[in-house]
Amino acid sequence: MEPGKSAFLFDLDGTLIDSVYEHVLAWHEALDDEGIPLAIWRIHRRIGMSGGLFSNMLLRETGMNITAERMDSLRRRHAEHFKRRSHLVRALPGARELLARLDELGLPWAIATSGRIETAAAGLDMLGVDRDRVPVVTRDQVRHAKPDPDLFLTAAERLGVGMDRAVVVGDATWDMLAARRARALGVGLLSGGYGENELERAGAARVYEDPADLLLHLDEVGGRS
Amino acid sequence: MEPGKSAFLFDLDGTLIDSVYEHVLAWHEALDDEGIPLAIWRIHRRIGMSGGLFSNMLLRETGMNITAERMDSLRRRHAEHFKRRSHLVRALPGARELLARLDELGLPWAIATSGRIETAAAGLDMLGVDRDRVPVVTRDQVRHAKPDPDLFLTAAERLGVGMDRAVVVGDATWDMLAARRARALGVGLLSGGYGENELERAGAARVYEDPADLLLHLDEVGGRS
Repeated sequence: MEPGKSAFLFDLDGTLIDSVYEHVLAWHEALDDEGIPLAIWRIHRRIGMSGGLFSNMLLRETGMNITAERMDSLRRRHAEHFKRRSHLVRALPGARELLARLDELGLPWAIATSGRIETAAAGLDMLGVDRDRVPVVTRDQVRHAKPDPDLFLTAAERLGVGMDRAVVVGDATWDMLAARRARALGVGLLSGGYGENELERAGAARVYEDPADLLLHLDEVGGRS
Repeated sequence: MEPGKSAFLFDLDGTLIDSVYEHVLAWHEALDDEGIPLAIWRIHRRIGMSGGLFSNMLLRETGMNITAERMDSLRRRHAEHFKRRSHLVRALPGARELLARLDELGLPWAIATSGRIETAAAGLDMLGVDRDRVPVVTRDQVRHAKPDPDLFLTAAERLGVGMDRAVVVGDATWDMLAARRARALGVGLLSGGYGENELERAGAARVYEDPADLLLHLDEVGGRS
């Protein structure tokens, strides 16, 4: 039996657009506004996970109990700080070319992000993603965000493909863990600022520098017509 | 023969103060001002190295030849962007307590940073470092910055200790490489956002989360009276 063609499920921030560091500092500013001290590297290591798990992490790291109201307020402040910074955000090298190449090869692809559509929309526009054609699953549409598998499972379902064909491309350990939980093949990119070994330990089958580097090696992970 | 007491040589940014991410984005903005596109994670991975090596890296990554004038202009823009962001910079957890503990133990310590005094001064003040008493070696004072060993060699010389007693504490692979080249013991901290494995591979004898975590384990690396 021949396996089906690969279908690619992409994370957005740090994977296709260069927005992770701005998100990290926007969270840092939001926490600072609320008088919650947290070192920046700890935020970086938790970025891309669901808000609920993020607030559990805050409880663990700071000892402060973060109520649902507090979390809502943090989320609003984060979105404001991020918007102020977002004029500096660019597509990552090779991102548009990689998506175009998948289209040429006739391989299905979708986007699955832990962010909300409010903050993700600008990034999708920057990449020229046609949301009438490409499935885009955001945090608003699923019960649990990463590292739960829901975002990737929903994205594959929208494409009409089984997880045995799914290749998850992400920059964070949470993407790789969610990929494993979804029984997809995880492919890590260094462009979000995690280390190679962190991604490998989290289950990445392969790690590339950025979308341009993945495009160069696309045949290694099923990228052929 | 009993070995001498340990002397601690500290990097500043990402090791004692939480400034790495702001520096990274200030460089990104400076490069953007000059029309030089570079993904943020690549800047993060090069932060803390000398300006000359940084411009070689730019040449390699972007193919653009960076003249001395261009590098001066970038440096000025970086300093401006960093200053605008620096109100958000805080001391890292445990940094002041760690330095106070070394004083209690009667162990000598110094600071050695690839930054210039212009951008480092605010961080030193934040930590309450008395520059009349504590040797502070900045990029202005040595020929080659990290990963060359000059900054750490000069700091040890100012303390009047040999490198066989020197413990270099830093957050970047460049600190660990400079420590090895100086024949010091390298101790890595995760608080600059590098991965544990990156620091170990670069030669860290031990890796801790941040200054607070190092303080808890100080006896492991010679921190006793």
